[in-house]
Amino acid sequence: MLEVHAFATANSVKVPIALEEMGLAYRLVPVDLRRGEHKTAAFKVMNRNGKVPVLVDRSVPGEGDLVIGESAAILVHLAEKTGQLLPRDGQRRARVFEQLFFHASGLSPAFGQAFRVALQPSPQPEAKSQALAEVERTLGVLNEILERDPYVAGDGYSIADIAHFGWVWRHQSIGATLDKFPFVARWHEEMAARPAVVTAIEKTLALAQ
Amino acid sequence: MLEVHAFATANSVKVPIALEEMGLAYRLVPVDLRRGEHKTAAFKVMNRNGKVPVLVDRSVPGEGDLVIGESAAILVHLAEKTGQLLPRDGQRRARVFEQLFFHASGLSPAFGQAFRVALQPSPQPEAKSQALAEVERTLGVLNEILERDPYVAGDGYSIADIAHFGWVWRHQSIGATLDKFPFVARWHEEMAARPAVVTAIEKTLALAQ
Repeated sequence: MLEVHAFATANSVKVPIALEEMGLAYRLVPVDLRRGEHKTAAFKVMNRNGKVPVLVDRSVPGEGDLVIGESAAILVHLAEKTGQLLPRDGQRRARVFEQLFFHASGLSPAFGQAFRVALQPSPQPEAKSQALAEVERTLGVLNEILERDPYVAGDGYSIADIAHFGWVWRHQSIGATLDKFPFVARWHEEMAARPAVVTAIEKTLALAQ
Repeated sequence: MLEVHAFATANSVKVPIALEEMGLAYRLVPVDLRRGEHKTAAFKVMNRNGKVPVLVDRSVPGEGDLVIGESAAILVHLAEKTGQLLPRDGQRRARVFEQLFFHASGLSPAFGQAFRVALQPSPQPEAKSQALAEVERTLGVLNEILERDPYVAGDGYSIADIAHFGWVWRHQSIGATLDKFPFVARWHEEMAARPAVVTAIEKTLALAQ
Protein backbone atom coordinates (compact mmCIF):
# COMPACT_ATOMS: atom_id res chain seq x y z
CA MET A 1 0.00 0.00 0.00
CA LEU A 2 1.20 3.48 -0.83
CA GLU A 3 0.89 6.20 1.81
CA VAL A 4 0.69 9.87 0.82
CA HIS A 5 1.28 12.37 3.62
CA ALA A 6 -0.47 15.48 2.33
CA PHE A 7 -2.80 18.41 2.89
CA ALA A 8 -5.24 20.44 0.78
CA THR A 9 -2.49 22.18 -1.23
CA ALA A 10 -1.40 22.74 -4.82
CA ASN A 11 1.65 20.53 -4.40
CA SER A 12 -0.21 17.77 -2.57
CA VAL A 13 -2.99 17.34 -5.15
CA LYS A 14 -0.51 16.32 -7.86
CA VAL A 15 0.21 12.98 -6.17
CA PRO A 16 -3.39 11.71 -5.82
CA ILE A 17 -4.04 12.82 -9.43
CA ALA A 18 -1.15 10.64 -10.62
CA LEU A 19 -2.21 7.73 -8.42
CA GLU A 20 -5.82 7.92 -9.68
CA GLU A 21 -4.63 8.11 -13.30
CA MET A 22 -2.35 5.11 -12.78
CA GLY A 23 -4.96 3.04 -10.96
CA LEU A 24 -2.79 2.51 -7.87
CA ALA A 25 -4.29 1.95 -4.41
CA TYR A 26 -3.21 4.51 -1.80
CA ARG A 27 -4.03 5.98 1.54
CA LEU A 28 -3.97 9.73 2.22
CA VAL A 29 -2.53 10.67 5.62
CA PRO A 30 -3.46 14.25 6.59
CA VAL A 31 -0.65 16.57 7.69
CA ASP A 32 -2.46 19.62 9.06
CA LEU A 33 -0.35 22.62 8.04
CA ARG A 34 -2.61 24.92 10.10
CA ARG A 35 -1.36 23.13 13.21
CA GLY A 36 2.24 23.04 12.01
CA GLU A 37 2.27 19.25 11.71
CA HIS A 38 4.84 19.57 8.87
CA LYS A 39 7.29 21.18 11.27
CA THR A 40 7.42 18.39 13.85
CA ALA A 41 10.54 16.28 14.36
CA ALA A 42 8.57 13.18 13.35
CA PHE A 43 7.60 14.72 10.02
CA LYS A 44 11.12 16.03 9.35
CA VAL A 45 12.46 12.47 9.59
CA MET A 46 10.43 11.86 6.41
CA ASN A 47 11.35 15.15 4.75
CA ARG A 48 14.03 17.41 6.18
CA ASN A 49 12.68 20.27 4.07
CA GLY A 50 9.45 20.13 6.14
CA LYS A 51 7.02 20.19 3.20
CA VAL A 52 4.12 18.08 1.97
CA PRO A 53 3.61 15.83 0.08
CA VAL A 54 5.69 12.82 1.12
CA LEU A 55 5.25 9.34 -0.35
CA VAL A 56 5.92 6.13 1.57
CA ASP A 57 6.24 3.13 -0.75
CA ARG A 58 6.65 -0.19 1.06
CA SER A 59 6.58 -2.26 -2.12
CA VAL A 60 9.95 -1.58 -3.74
CA PRO A 61 11.70 -4.92 -4.34
CA GLY A 62 14.82 -5.45 -2.21
CA GLU A 63 14.43 -2.22 -0.25
CA GLY A 64 12.95 -1.13 3.04
CA ASP A 65 10.37 1.63 3.02
CA LEU A 66 11.05 4.13 0.27
CA VAL A 67 10.28 7.57 1.69
CA ILE A 68 10.42 10.50 -0.69
CA GLY A 69 9.54 14.20 -0.66
CA GLU A 70 9.06 16.78 -3.45
CA SER A 71 5.89 16.31 -5.48
CA ALA A 72 7.65 16.11 -8.85
CA ALA A 73 10.16 13.52 -7.56
CA ILE A 74 7.18 11.46 -6.38
CA LEU A 75 5.59 11.76 -9.84
CA VAL A 76 8.82 10.49 -11.45
CA HIS A 77 8.97 7.56 -9.03
CA LEU A 78 5.34 6.58 -9.70
CA ALA A 79 5.76 6.95 -13.49
CA GLU A 80 8.84 4.71 -13.49
CA LYS A 81 7.17 2.22 -11.12
CA THR A 82 4.17 1.78 -13.44
CA GLY A 83 5.66 2.61 -16.84
CA GLN A 84 2.95 5.26 -17.29
CA LEU A 85 2.86 8.98 -18.18
CA LEU A 86 6.62 9.32 -18.85
CA PRO A 87 8.10 8.24 -22.22
CA ARG A 88 11.06 5.87 -21.94
CA ASP A 89 13.57 7.80 -24.03
CA GLY A 90 14.44 10.47 -26.54
CA GLN A 91 13.09 13.96 -27.02
CA ARG A 92 9.66 13.11 -25.59
CA ARG A 93 11.19 12.00 -22.27
CA ALA A 94 13.54 15.00 -22.19
CA ARG A 95 10.60 17.37 -22.78
CA VAL A 96 8.71 15.93 -19.77
CA PHE A 97 11.74 16.54 -17.54
CA GLU A 98 12.20 20.04 -18.99
CA GLN A 99 8.60 20.88 -18.08
CA LEU A 100 8.82 19.26 -14.62
CA PHE A 101 11.84 21.46 -13.87
CA PHE A 102 10.29 24.56 -15.48
CA HIS A 103 7.37 23.91 -13.15
CA ALA A 104 9.55 23.41 -10.07
CA SER A 105 11.89 26.34 -10.70
CA GLY A 106 9.59 28.74 -12.57
CA LEU A 107 5.82 28.41 -12.46
CA SER A 108 5.57 26.92 -8.97
CA PRO A 109 7.76 29.54 -7.18
CA ALA A 110 5.86 32.30 -9.05
CA PHE A 111 2.47 30.99 -7.93
CA GLY A 112 3.80 30.21 -4.45
CA GLN A 113 5.08 33.77 -4.00
CA ALA A 114 1.76 35.25 -5.23
CA PHE A 115 -0.08 32.93 -2.82
CA ARG A 116 2.03 34.09 0.14
CA VAL A 117 1.41 37.75 -0.82
CA ALA A 118 -2.35 37.10 -1.18
CA LEU A 119 -2.44 35.54 2.31
CA GLN A 120 -1.07 38.69 3.97
CA PRO A 121 -3.69 40.71 5.88
CA SER A 122 -2.89 43.87 3.88
CA PRO A 123 -0.60 43.02 0.96
CA GLN A 124 1.55 45.82 -0.46
CA PRO A 125 0.24 46.71 -3.95
CA GLU A 126 3.78 46.68 -5.34
CA ALA A 127 4.55 43.22 -3.96
CA LYS A 128 1.24 41.95 -5.33
CA SER A 129 1.79 43.32 -8.84
CA GLN A 130 5.40 42.06 -8.94
CA ALA A 131 4.25 38.57 -7.94
CA LEU A 132 1.41 38.55 -10.47
CA ALA A 133 3.74 39.75 -13.23
CA GLU A 134 5.90 36.65 -12.81
CA VAL A 135 2.79 34.45 -12.64
CA GLU A 136 1.67 35.94 -15.97
CA ARG A 137 5.12 35.51 -17.50
CA THR A 138 5.14 31.80 -16.68
CA LEU A 139 1.54 31.36 -17.86
CA GLY A 140 2.60 33.08 -21.10
CA VAL A 141 5.35 30.48 -21.61
CA LEU A 142 2.83 27.70 -21.00
CA ASN A 143 0.34 29.35 -23.37
CA GLU A 144 2.88 29.36 -26.23
CA ILE A 145 3.59 25.68 -25.64
CA LEU A 146 -0.11 24.78 -25.50
CA GLU A 147 -0.83 26.77 -28.64
CA ARG A 148 1.25 24.26 -30.57
CA ASP A 149 0.81 21.06 -28.60
CA PRO A 150 -2.18 19.46 -26.87
CA TYR A 151 -0.17 18.75 -23.70
CA VAL A 152 2.63 20.62 -21.95
CA ALA A 153 5.32 18.17 -23.07
CA GLY A 154 3.97 17.50 -26.57
CA ASP A 155 1.50 15.00 -27.99
CA GLY A 156 1.05 12.83 -24.92
CA TYR A 157 -0.50 13.37 -21.52
CA SER A 158 2.29 13.10 -18.92
CA ILE A 159 3.26 13.74 -15.32
CA ALA A 160 4.37 17.23 -16.46
CA ASP A 161 0.68 18.09 -17.09
CA ILE A 162 -0.14 16.90 -13.59
CA ALA A 163 2.66 19.03 -12.07
CA HIS A 164 1.60 22.24 -13.86
CA PHE A 165 -2.09 21.57 -13.16
CA GLY A 166 -1.49 21.46 -9.40
CA TRP A 167 -0.75 25.19 -9.32
CA VAL A 168 -2.75 26.39 -12.35
CA TRP A 169 -5.82 24.82 -10.69
CA ARG A 170 -5.33 27.36 -7.84
CA HIS A 171 -5.06 30.45 -10.08
CA GLN A 172 -8.20 32.06 -8.65
CA SER A 173 -6.85 31.88 -5.10
CA ILE A 174 -3.99 34.20 -6.07
CA GLY A 175 -6.19 36.64 -7.98
CA ALA A 176 -5.02 35.51 -11.43
CA THR A 177 -7.19 34.84 -14.46
CA LEU A 178 -6.65 32.70 -17.55
CA ASP A 179 -8.45 35.21 -19.82
CA LYS A 180 -5.25 36.26 -21.55
CA PHE A 181 -4.08 32.66 -21.94
CA PRO A 182 -6.71 30.88 -24.06
CA PHE A 183 -4.60 27.77 -24.71
CA VAL A 184 -3.86 27.35 -21.01
CA ALA A 185 -7.60 27.83 -20.34
CA ARG A 186 -8.51 25.08 -22.86
CA TRP A 187 -5.95 22.67 -21.34
CA HIS A 188 -7.03 23.55 -17.77
CA GLU A 189 -10.65 22.84 -18.60
CA GLU A 190 -9.80 19.48 -20.19
CA MET A 191 -7.59 18.51 -17.22
CA ALA A 192 -10.23 19.51 -14.67
CA ALA A 193 -12.80 17.29 -16.43
CA ARG A 194 -10.72 14.09 -16.24
CA PRO A 195 -12.35 11.62 -13.82
CA ALA A 196 -9.01 10.95 -12.06
CA VAL A 197 -8.53 14.68 -11.51
CA VAL A 198 -12.07 15.18 -10.18
CA THR A 199 -11.65 12.32 -7.70
CA ALA A 200 -8.18 13.44 -6.58
CA ILE A 201 -9.28 17.03 -5.99
CA GLU A 202 -12.25 15.84 -3.93
CA LYS A 203 -10.06 13.61 -1.75
CA THR A 204 -7.38 16.30 -1.38
CA LEU A 205 -9.80 19.05 -0.36
CA ALA A 206 -11.36 16.68 2.19
CA LEU A 207 -8.02 16.66 4.05
CA ALA A 208 -8.76 20.19 5.32
CA GLN A 209 -12.26 19.41 6.54
CA MET B 1 28.98 16.72 -30.69
CA LEU B 2 27.04 18.27 -27.83
CA GLU B 3 26.37 22.00 -27.86
CA VAL B 4 25.76 23.90 -24.63
CA HIS B 5 24.28 27.38 -25.00
CA ALA B 6 25.31 29.06 -21.77
CA PHE B 7 26.75 32.04 -19.94
CA ALA B 8 28.81 32.60 -16.77
CA THR B 9 25.94 31.75 -14.41
CA ALA B 10 25.11 29.41 -11.54
CA ASN B 11 22.69 27.40 -13.67
CA SER B 12 24.99 27.23 -16.69
CA VAL B 13 28.03 25.87 -14.83
CA LYS B 14 26.17 22.70 -13.83
CA VAL B 15 26.14 21.37 -17.40
CA PRO B 16 29.90 21.65 -18.15
CA ILE B 17 30.60 20.11 -14.71
CA ALA B 18 28.48 17.07 -15.62
CA LEU B 19 30.03 16.84 -19.10
CA GLU B 20 33.57 17.02 -17.70
CA GLU B 21 32.75 14.38 -15.06
CA MET B 22 31.25 12.11 -17.72
CA GLY B 23 34.11 12.58 -20.19
CA LEU B 24 31.83 13.77 -23.00
CA ALA B 25 33.07 16.14 -25.74
CA TYR B 26 31.12 19.39 -26.00
CA ARG B 27 31.20 22.91 -27.33
CA LEU B 28 30.13 25.92 -25.26
CA VAL B 29 28.16 28.53 -27.22
CA PRO B 30 28.07 31.88 -25.39
CA VAL B 31 24.66 33.53 -24.89
CA ASP B 32 25.51 37.01 -23.59
CA LEU B 33 22.82 37.84 -21.04
CA ARG B 34 24.22 41.39 -20.72
CA ARG B 35 23.16 41.98 -24.33
CA GLY B 36 19.81 40.20 -23.88
CA GLU B 37 20.76 37.37 -26.26
CA HIS B 38 18.51 35.01 -24.25
CA LYS B 39 15.49 37.14 -25.14
CA THR B 40 15.80 36.96 -28.92
CA ALA B 41 13.28 35.08 -31.05
CA ALA B 42 16.06 32.75 -32.23
CA PHE B 43 16.94 31.78 -28.66
CA LYS B 44 13.30 31.34 -27.65
CA VAL B 45 12.87 28.73 -30.37
CA MET B 46 15.30 26.64 -28.30
CA ASN B 47 13.78 27.54 -24.94
CA ARG B 48 10.46 29.39 -24.71
CA ASN B 49 11.27 30.24 -21.10
CA GLY B 50 14.20 32.37 -22.34
CA LYS B 51 16.82 31.02 -19.93
CA VAL B 52 20.26 29.46 -20.19
CA PRO B 53 21.52 26.75 -20.32
CA VAL B 54 20.16 24.88 -23.34
CA LEU B 55 21.62 21.59 -24.60
CA VAL B 56 21.58 20.53 -28.24
CA ASP B 57 22.26 16.81 -28.65
CA ARG B 58 22.51 15.66 -32.27
CA SER B 59 23.42 12.10 -31.37
CA VAL B 60 20.15 10.61 -30.09
CA PRO B 61 19.37 7.47 -32.13
CA GLY B 62 16.29 7.78 -34.34
CA GLU B 63 15.65 11.43 -33.51
CA GLY B 64 16.49 14.79 -35.00
CA ASP B 65 18.27 17.32 -32.83
CA LEU B 66 17.28 16.99 -29.21
CA VAL B 67 17.00 20.51 -27.79
CA ILE B 68 16.37 20.85 -24.08
CA GLY B 69 16.30 23.63 -21.49
CA GLU B 70 16.40 23.63 -17.67
CA SER B 71 19.77 22.72 -16.20
CA ALA B 72 18.47 19.83 -14.08
CA ALA B 73 16.57 18.30 -17.02
CA ILE B 74 19.83 18.45 -18.99
CA LEU B 75 21.64 16.69 -16.12
CA VAL B 76 19.01 13.91 -16.14
CA HIS B 77 19.36 13.52 -19.92
CA LEU B 78 23.17 13.29 -19.73
CA ALA B 79 23.05 10.85 -16.79
CA GLU B 80 20.65 8.56 -18.63
CA LYS B 81 22.64 8.87 -21.88
CA THR B 82 25.87 7.74 -20.18
CA GLY B 83 24.58 5.60 -17.30
CA GLN B 84 26.56 7.80 -14.90
CA LEU B 85 25.81 9.78 -11.71
CA LEU B 86 22.17 8.59 -11.38
CA PRO B 87 21.36 5.19 -9.81
CA ARG B 88 19.10 3.00 -11.93
CA ASP B 89 16.40 2.28 -9.36
CA GLY B 90 15.15 2.17 -5.80
CA GLN B 91 15.62 4.58 -2.94
CA ARG B 92 18.98 5.83 -4.21
CA ARG B 93 17.46 6.95 -7.52
CA ALA B 94 14.43 8.48 -5.77
CA ARG B 95 16.71 10.44 -3.44
CA VAL B 96 18.60 11.98 -6.40
CA PHE B 97 15.30 13.17 -7.91
CA GLU B 98 14.13 14.47 -4.52
CA GLN B 99 17.29 16.56 -4.24
CA LEU B 100 17.13 17.76 -7.86
CA PHE B 101 13.60 19.02 -7.21
CA PHE B 102 14.48 20.43 -3.78
CA HIS B 103 17.21 22.31 -5.60
CA ALA B 104 14.92 23.53 -8.40
CA SER B 105 12.00 24.52 -6.16
CA GLY B 106 13.80 25.46 -2.94
CA LEU B 107 17.50 26.26 -2.86
CA SER B 108 17.76 27.69 -6.39
CA PRO B 109 14.82 30.15 -6.12
CA ALA B 110 16.13 31.26 -2.69
CA PHE B 111 19.62 31.96 -4.04
CA GLY B 112 18.16 33.47 -7.23
CA GLN B 113 16.01 35.91 -5.27
CA ALA B 114 18.94 36.91 -3.03
CA PHE B 115 21.06 37.42 -6.15
CA ARG B 116 18.43 39.73 -7.71
CA VAL B 117 18.22 41.72 -4.46
CA ALA B 118 22.03 41.98 -4.26
CA LEU B 119 22.16 43.33 -7.84
CA GLN B 120 19.87 46.26 -7.03
CA PRO B 121 21.69 49.61 -6.76
CA SER B 122 20.34 50.22 -3.24
CA PRO B 123 18.65 47.06 -1.94
CA GLN B 124 16.02 47.47 0.78
CA PRO B 125 17.40 46.04 4.05
CA GLU B 126 14.14 44.16 4.69
CA ALA B 127 14.13 42.52 1.23
CA LYS B 128 17.78 41.58 1.70
CA SER B 129 17.27 39.98 5.12
CA GLN B 130 14.13 38.13 3.96
CA ALA B 131 16.00 36.72 0.96
CA LEU B 132 19.01 35.69 3.06
CA ALA B 133 16.75 34.03 5.65
CA GLU B 134 15.39 31.64 3.00
CA VAL B 135 18.92 31.03 1.68
CA GLU B 136 19.97 30.09 5.23
CA ARG B 137 16.91 27.86 5.71
CA THR B 138 17.73 25.87 2.58
CA LEU B 139 21.44 25.68 3.49
CA GLY B 140 20.32 24.37 6.89
CA VAL B 141 18.37 21.55 5.21
CA LEU B 142 21.42 20.69 3.13
CA ASN B 143 23.66 20.83 6.21
CA GLU B 144 21.51 18.25 8.03
CA ILE B 145 21.68 15.95 5.02
CA LEU B 146 25.46 16.35 4.68
CA GLU B 147 25.97 15.77 8.40
CA ARG B 148 24.80 12.20 7.86
CA ASP B 149 25.83 11.45 4.29
CA PRO B 150 28.93 12.30 2.25
CA TYR B 151 26.84 13.48 -0.73
CA VAL B 152 23.49 15.24 -1.00
CA ALA B 153 21.64 12.13 -2.13
CA GLY B 154 23.46 9.60 0.09
CA ASP B 155 26.62 7.55 -0.35
CA GLY B 156 27.28 8.26 -3.99
CA TYR B 157 28.29 11.35 -5.95
CA SER B 158 25.40 12.22 -8.29
CA ILE B 159 23.94 14.88 -10.57
CA ALA B 160 22.12 16.23 -7.48
CA ASP B 161 25.50 17.31 -6.05
CA ILE B 162 26.25 19.10 -9.32
CA ALA B 163 22.87 20.88 -9.24
CA HIS B 164 23.26 22.13 -5.65
CA PHE B 165 26.90 23.07 -6.24
CA GLY B 166 25.97 25.42 -9.10
CA TRP B 167 24.32 27.85 -6.69
CA VAL B 168 26.26 27.11 -3.47
CA TRP B 169 29.43 27.93 -5.42
CA ARG B 170 28.03 31.49 -5.80
CA HIS B 171 27.22 32.01 -2.10
CA GLN B 172 29.70 34.87 -1.71
CA SER B 173 28.09 36.85 -4.53
CA ILE B 174 24.84 37.07 -2.55
CA GLY B 175 26.53 37.97 0.73
CA ALA B 176 26.04 34.54 2.33
CA THR B 177 28.62 32.58 4.29
CA LEU B 178 28.95 28.86 5.02
CA ASP B 179 30.30 29.49 8.55
CA LYS B 180 27.12 28.21 10.20
CA PHE B 181 26.94 25.19 7.88
CA PRO B 182 30.14 23.18 8.46
CA PHE B 183 28.95 20.08 6.60
CA VAL B 184 27.97 22.14 3.56
CA ALA B 185 31.38 23.86 3.78
CA ARG B 186 33.19 20.48 3.83
CA TRP B 187 31.19 19.23 0.81
CA HIS B 188 31.64 22.53 -1.06
CA GLU B 189 35.39 22.39 -0.56
CA GLU B 190 35.57 18.79 -1.81
CA MET B 191 33.39 19.58 -4.82
CA ALA B 192 35.42 22.68 -5.72
CA ALA B 193 38.63 20.60 -5.71
CA ARG B 194 37.41 18.00 -8.24
CA PRO B 195 39.36 18.37 -11.51
CA ALA B 196 36.14 18.28 -13.58
CA VAL B 197 34.67 21.10 -11.47
CA VAL B 198 37.83 23.23 -11.74
CA THR B 199 37.89 22.85 -15.53
CA ALA B 200 34.16 23.51 -15.93
CA ILE B 201 34.24 26.65 -13.79
CA GLU B 202 37.19 27.99 -15.79
CA LYS B 203 35.43 27.39 -19.12
CA THR B 204 32.13 28.83 -17.82
CA LEU B 205 33.67 32.01 -16.43
CA ALA B 206 35.52 32.51 -19.74
CA LEU B 207 32.10 32.94 -21.43
CA ALA B 208 31.81 36.42 -19.88
CA GLN B 209 35.25 37.59 -20.94
